[in-house]
Amino acid sequence: MYEGAVQDLIDELGRLPGVGPKSAQRIAFHLLAADTEDVHRLVDALTEVKNKVRFCEVCGNVAEEDRCQVCRDPRRSTTVICVVEEPKDVVAIERTREFRGTYHVLGGAINPIDNIGPDNLRIKELLTRLADGTVAEVILAMDPNVEGEATATYLSRLLVPMGLRVTRLASGLPVGGDLEYADEVTLGRAFEGRRVVHG
Amino acid sequence: MYEGAVQDLIDELGRLPGVGPKSAQRIAFHLLAADTEDVHRLVDALTEVKNKVRFCEVCGNVAEEDRCQVCRDPRRSTTVICVVEEPKDVVAIERTREFRGTYHVLGGAINPIDNIGPDNLRIKELLTRLADGTVAEVILAMDPNVEGEATATYLSRLLVPMGLRVTRLASGLPVGGDLEYADEVTLGRAFEGRRVVHG
Repeated sequence: MYEGAVQDLIDELGRLPGVGPKSAQRIAFHLLAADTEDVHRLVDALTEVKNKVRFCEVCGNVAEEDRCQVCRDPRRSTTVICVVEEPKDVVAIERTREFRGTYHVLGGAINPIDNIGPDNLRIKELLTRLADGTVAEVILAMDPNVEGEATATYLSRLLVPMGLRVTRLASGLPVGGDLEYADEVTLGRAFEGRRVVHG
Repeated sequence: MYEGAVQDLIDELGRLPGVGPKSAQRIAFHLLAADTEDVHRLVDALTEVKNKVRFCEVCGNVAEEDRCQVCRDPRRSTTVICVVEEPKDVVAIERTREFRGTYHVLGGAINPIDNIGPDNLRIKELLTRLADGTVAEVILAMDPNVEGEATATYLSRLLVPMGLRVTRLASGLPVGGDLEYADEVTLGRAFEGRRVVHG
């Protein structure tokens, strides 16, 4: 519809996740009107990310050196490993400041529809890390959805027989939420995981 | 939250219109996992758009030469000018294949809140085009919102005394819509603009 370069940019932007044709057009015109300097900053950021960023050789998290920020930090405990699906889950957990152990990023979850089986995830690498016996606990922190549950079940069947303490994050009512609006599954989990109040 | 390059990219993406922090993160991780070639195509498209694209010296539409595709086309009538706010409006009208005249892109609409007055729009350029008397009709095709209406009113007060035929696009019920769901203003306009049915 547009002349060459504008249409090319709209097409490329439209390939990004969550960017439909209308947003792609809006972004393209925004960039057309923007300072050349602003566009260069975006171009540089894109180029840098491909040049600099790799995956941590230990945990699979994003890193700019051989090891990620967490694995490089000597204050982090290596006896507890929190297994997550994606690097963004590491960021979400780091934000809580609750966890002082290390991570293992699987790179996804078991999903037969998308043809992702255990062999496509970094499970072999996890087992290698567990081999020397320093790890005492593995926390399974997959997403609370079908794929996450399947992955957690698969991993717990693999890890429990190894004599490790295997835990999962608690399911229940989100803090700040409204009980009456909680879905049945969440409310059911909240009952299942109810705690004795002392005092 | 992330190490340098990833966070830089998330920040840059988050500056784009309609891209919130969550989408920026999602796009950044998508690009991290994507082929270097795909990212290069996006980088090239961004660079090309800033290098190649300029604005048509006649109508202000996007162009890769001095004049845009429409203004270069000798089959387009120069006696009718359709005035629009943005280049994307040109594309929307071209898609209808109803209009065979030429355009004039104002570059926005009068909006006191954003400090956009008549002097910030390409109105002087429009008057220059009208000076030689070849234009018989000016179609005002602003967005049907407050800013668009204000701009159309401003322009009609300027152009009608010049003896030009000044028209506006019809307002009314959208085709395929449901009368009961039309807002009052649209329905009011549909009444106002009702036509006599012959036959």
